This record gives sequence, structure tokens and C-alpha cells, in this order.
Amino acid sequence: MKKGHQITMKEIAKKLGVSVSTISRALKDSPELHPETKRKIVEMAKEMNYQPNLLAQSLRISRSKTLGVIVPEITSHFFASCISGIQDTANKRGYNVMICQSNESIEQEKANIRTLVSSQVDGLLISLSRETNTFEHLYDLYDREINFVLFDRVQEDIPVSKVTFNDAGGAYQVTHHLLEGGNRRILYVSGPEDLYISKKRKEGYLKALAEYGIGEDPSLIKISELTLDDNIRVANEIAEMNPRPDAVFCMIDPVAVDVLTQWKSMGIKIPEEMALAGFTNNPTSAVVEPPLTTVSQPGYEMGKLAVSHLLDQLDGIASEDPISIVLETTLVPRKSSQHF
Amino acid sequence: MKKGHQITMKEIAKKLGVSVSTISRALKDSPELHPETKRKIVEMAKEMNYQPNLLAQSLRISRSKTLGVIVPEITSHFFASCISGIQDTANKRGYNVMICQSNESIEQEKANIRTLVSSQVDGLLISLSRETNTFEHLYDLYDREINFVLFDRVQEDIPVSKVTFNDAGGAYQVTHHLLEGGNRRILYVSGPEDLYISKKRKEGYLKALAEYGIGEDPSLIKISELTLDDNIRVANEIAEMNPRPDAVFCMIDPVAVDVLTQWKSMGIKIPEEMALAGFTNNPTSAVVEPPLTTVSQPGYEMGKLAVSHLLDQLDGIASEDPISIVLETTLVPRKSSQHF
Repeated sequence: MKKGHQITMKEIAKKLGVSVSTISRALKDSPELHPETKRKIVEMAKEMNYQPNLLAQSLRISRSKTLGVIVPEITSHFFASCISGIQDTANKRGYNVMICQSNESIEQEKANIRTLVSSQVDGLLISLSRETNTFEHLYDLYDREINFVLFDRVQEDIPVSKVTFNDAGGAYQVTHHLLEGGNRRILYVSGPEDLYISKKRKEGYLKALAEYGIGEDPSLIKISELTLDDNIRVANEIAEMNPRPDAVFCMIDPVAVDVLTQWKSMGIKIPEEMALAGFTNNPTSAVVEPPLTTVSQPGYEMGKLAVSHLLDQLDGIASEDPISIVLETTLVPRKSSQHF
Repeated sequence: MKKGHQITMKEIAKKLGVSVSTISRALKDSPELHPETKRKIVEMAKEMNYQPNLLAQSLRISRSKTLGVIVPEITSHFFASCISGIQDTANKRGYNVMICQSNESIEQEKANIRTLVSSQVDGLLISLSRETNTFEHLYDLYDREINFVLFDRVQEDIPVSKVTFNDAGGAYQVTHHLLEGGNRRILYVSGPEDLYISKKRKEGYLKALAEYGIGEDPSLIKISELTLDDNIRVANEIAEMNPRPDAVFCMIDPVAVDVLTQWKSMGIKIPEEMALAGFTNNPTSAVVEPPLTTVSQPGYEMGKLAVSHLLDQLDGIASEDPISIVLETTLVPRKSSQHF
């Protein structure tokens, strides 16, 4: 496939041990760099026979005024909120938005990128699929100088801007709240262990426990595949534990809602027999009985910030150097965790 | 703007008093038409100096293998389900899907069409915005011979294929169910009156009442703007009625859920004091307390059928003549309408 291989900025960066954005700025003759640094980079680029990607450059000049968005799933209230935030802000700035969903598949994510790039979008906002564990397709975008920003489900090493939540902080807040309510045996229902949010929320859960002098107890961590069936299996397993935990913290609201529904059908009283909490603040969490304690993640705000930064980069207002924006979450205490 | 105005097939059709699809078939020398009809049409096309849109034709030959979808809002569970059905089916047939949301704005709908058409999609699936009351942008697509199918929120006169639900039938089912439960004063909470579904569901509601010898009572029809605030206003107005209705049928589940939440906060017992029902079968309707009686509308199926038909047209399997596909709904009786 690599017939007539074209040298990328990434390769020059690797050779010289500097960042790709330094290479990019040197080749654009940026005044921010030391002349000597620029000279070295330009010489190396010549030596390696670097050819700037003219197609990418022309795309950057003739704007389509369209942005592409890739999310794992549109049916998720959280991602739908992100999309609303992206679209409202983009529209205000004269851009239209096309959305693709990866259905949690890396192959679909790659196909979406191809489709959106050949539709000549000016930039991309991407939240990675659950399956995405190789990142060549993202480095490829980077090498082609197509602007993109990662949000919520990000990969930490790629040198582009990222917008995330303080997931560990949110999990700490909710676990701390359960501890304050007198609960000590607190069970964490995690999603698949390689998910970024599974890890981060576990981190916050363990940190709050540690502050109360409670160590990690593997019997109090359960993994769900996040399907209805598997959530019910976990709900049943917890109901059968002896002794049962005092409280259960589920990684995301949909899991907590399934657990709540299953326990109610078994006659288990919430919060009297076990307290329950989720994370996300889906609309459903407010209307179930009892209403669910959760952590609010402002998806709309996340979308707005991600697209504002991308447009600032396109318009040359923001530096091309990657930044990381971390949004804080808010505890939403409701009846499912509180004896009144 | 109309410098060097290009004659469209629509204009030829109007002149001859035949359908645009007849013109289209005549100009393609279709064997389905009578030779005399074809001769007349070809002559008129010459006389009017009709120029086929070569760009549109070349686009039809060089496929992008991409479809565009326009929905009023992605945050709606129903439209999200439609999108899933569209995407799963399109992907299986080797197509990728780009989605735009109109945010219930006709201007945004037009901008979305421009964006998707200039991205060279092979065809479009469109569900109209609440605001869309002029249709030039759709006739324009038609004239440019860009294939599209309307679904759920359709316009009846445009000669393209449409996929809809039997909305009147679903409203009949739920009203009939409330009547069978012994309720006689049944109030209908409608959306804005010019909405297609407001009209169709009212039709079914009145038909079921008529079968029980009950005529239309204007005091038992309330209009909500479908916002949270307005749903609460309606819930309060109903609570203050004297006498109150026996039962309330809300045009869509989100309204019914807001009414339910408001009544519960006022201490009104459902279904003992008033029975309640919705329409759509949103996931929330199953988890509220009491669970909500509703009508199930398979959005996933609708999306699947709409895209299958569009792809069949693109592949020349389905005739280009427009068809209308009507999906049936199913009553989902739950506790909110039944005394146990």
C-alpha cells in the first residue's frame, strides 16, 4: 500500500524529537519559534523530501462552513445533548453540522471519518467508540492537517485538544455522599474495565472510601456489559449477596434505572434496604420512583466548549497547540440514597 | 435571482397536466408509457427548451455511497430510533449515513439540505420540521432529480414516497381502551393544531368517542406548546377543572410524563382520581410510577423501511413512482389507566 510513501510531519517530529505542532509552526515560518530551531526543521524537511499536503491546505482555504461530528450513539441522551450544544454554537457562527454515529464500532468510526472528510468538512469533533483501541486513523487525520477535537471519550496521547469531564471527581462526590449517609459497604457497578470512564470513576470511588479508612474490596466491585440483560443479572447477584451492601453506585444512570426496576419487582425497598446512585443525570433518573441520586454532566456545555475551541482554531483565534478542557460535575442528591 | 432560468420537469408537467414522474419516465424513454404520450412530452420539452440537469445525473452515476438524514431533533428517543434503523440497514447495504437536525426550524432544514446535497449524498431521508409550511425546497430537490423519501412528518402532496404511522388508528386504540375502562369524560391534550400528528390523533380520539355516542366537547380539548412549562400549565388547569375529566390522553409521552409528575406533586392519585395515557412508548413511560399506558410506534422499523425503499429506488429495484407505506401501532396498557 505504501507505494511512493509521503513523508509526514509526524515523522519529521519523531526524527528531531520535537512536537508535531513545532514542526507545523516552523514550516509556516511562525515568529514564535527561535530562528535556529526553524532552520534545523526546514533543513530536515528538505532532506527527508517532505511535501506539504496541498489538498489539505486547499481545503483549509476554501471553507465548506460545515463541521462533522462522530459520536458512539445518538440514542444516548448525553451524546444528544452534546450534539445540541455543538449545533447551536456552530449555527450561531455560520457553520452547519453533519453527524455520524459509530455504533461503538471502530470500523464504522473509520468509515465515518472517510465519509465526512470526503464531504470536505472544515473540522471534526470526535467521541471515540468503545472498541477504539488503535489510533492510526486519528494520527492520519492529524498528518493530513485536518483540524479535530476529541470530547468525552478521548485518547490521551494524540496531540489535539480534548474536552472531558472530571469523572474521578464526580464519582468521588457521589461515593462521599453515600458515606456521609452512614453507608460503609458500598458496591460499585462498573462498565467494561478497559473503558476510560470505568477506570476514572473507580478511581474516585476508591479515593472517597480511602478517606474513610476503607480499602478496596473486590467482592464489592461488579462488572456489567451495560446491556439490559446484564444489568438485571448484576441486580439479581447483589440481591442475593449475604450480607448485602449498604449502598450501590452504578457507573451510569441506565444501569441504575435497570437495577432499581429489577429490585422493585423483587420487593426490595430503596433506600431503606439498599441505597442507590447513578451518574449522568438522564431525564429518566428524575422520574423513576424513588427518584435517583446521580451526578450531573452538562453534555450541552461540553458540546459548546468543544465546538467553540475548534472554530477558534479554524479562525486562527486559538493557538494550534492542543489544550485540555476539564469540566466539573455536580452531585444531584435525590430520594434513592436518603432516608427521610 | 432567476437569471437564465432553467426549465424544470415540474413546469412541463404543469403545462401538460400530467405528473412529474410521467415526464421523468417519458424523457427516459420508459417502455411503461404509451408512445403517443411520450412523443407529446418530448415535443413539449423541446419547445420549452428543457435541459436535463447533467450535474444531478452525473451524481446519480458516480455514487458517493452516502445517504443524508434530516430529523427535527436528535434528542427525541423516537427519531433516534428511526436513525438507528436507517443506519443499520444502510450499513448492511454498503452505505454510510450523515445526519443533520433541523431543530424544528425551516431555515435550518433548508441549510441542512444544501449541506447534504453539496456533500453529494446519493439520496435523502427527511422528516419535516414543525415550522415547515412552504415546500419549495422539497420541490426543488424533486426537480433536480435527487432521490428522497419523507418519513413520519410528511407533506402529502409532494410526489415522493412516504412512510408514516397510522396515527389516527393509534389514538383510536388508546381512547377505545379508556372508554372500555369505564371513562366517559376523556380529555385530549393536543400539540399545536397545525401539526400533522395533532390532527390525526384528534381524528382517532373523536372516532372512538363517536362509537360510544359521545360528541366533541371543546372544553375537553387542551393545547400544549409541548414545552415543560406549558405541559405543567395544562396539568394545573386540568387539576382545577370542576368536574375533572375521568381520563386524560396526551398526544405524546413527554407531555403525559410531565402531567404525571405535576399531579403526583399535588397529591392526585393516578389512575384512581384520573386515568392517564400517552403515545410513543418512550423508555421513560415504562419506568415512571405508575407506569404509563401508551401506544407503541416502532421508530426503528420506520427507519428501516424508509431507507430500504430509498435504496431500492437508487438501485432500480423499486419503481420511481411514489408509494405510501403506513405502519400500524400497538396499544401498551399499563397501570396509569387501570384500576387493579
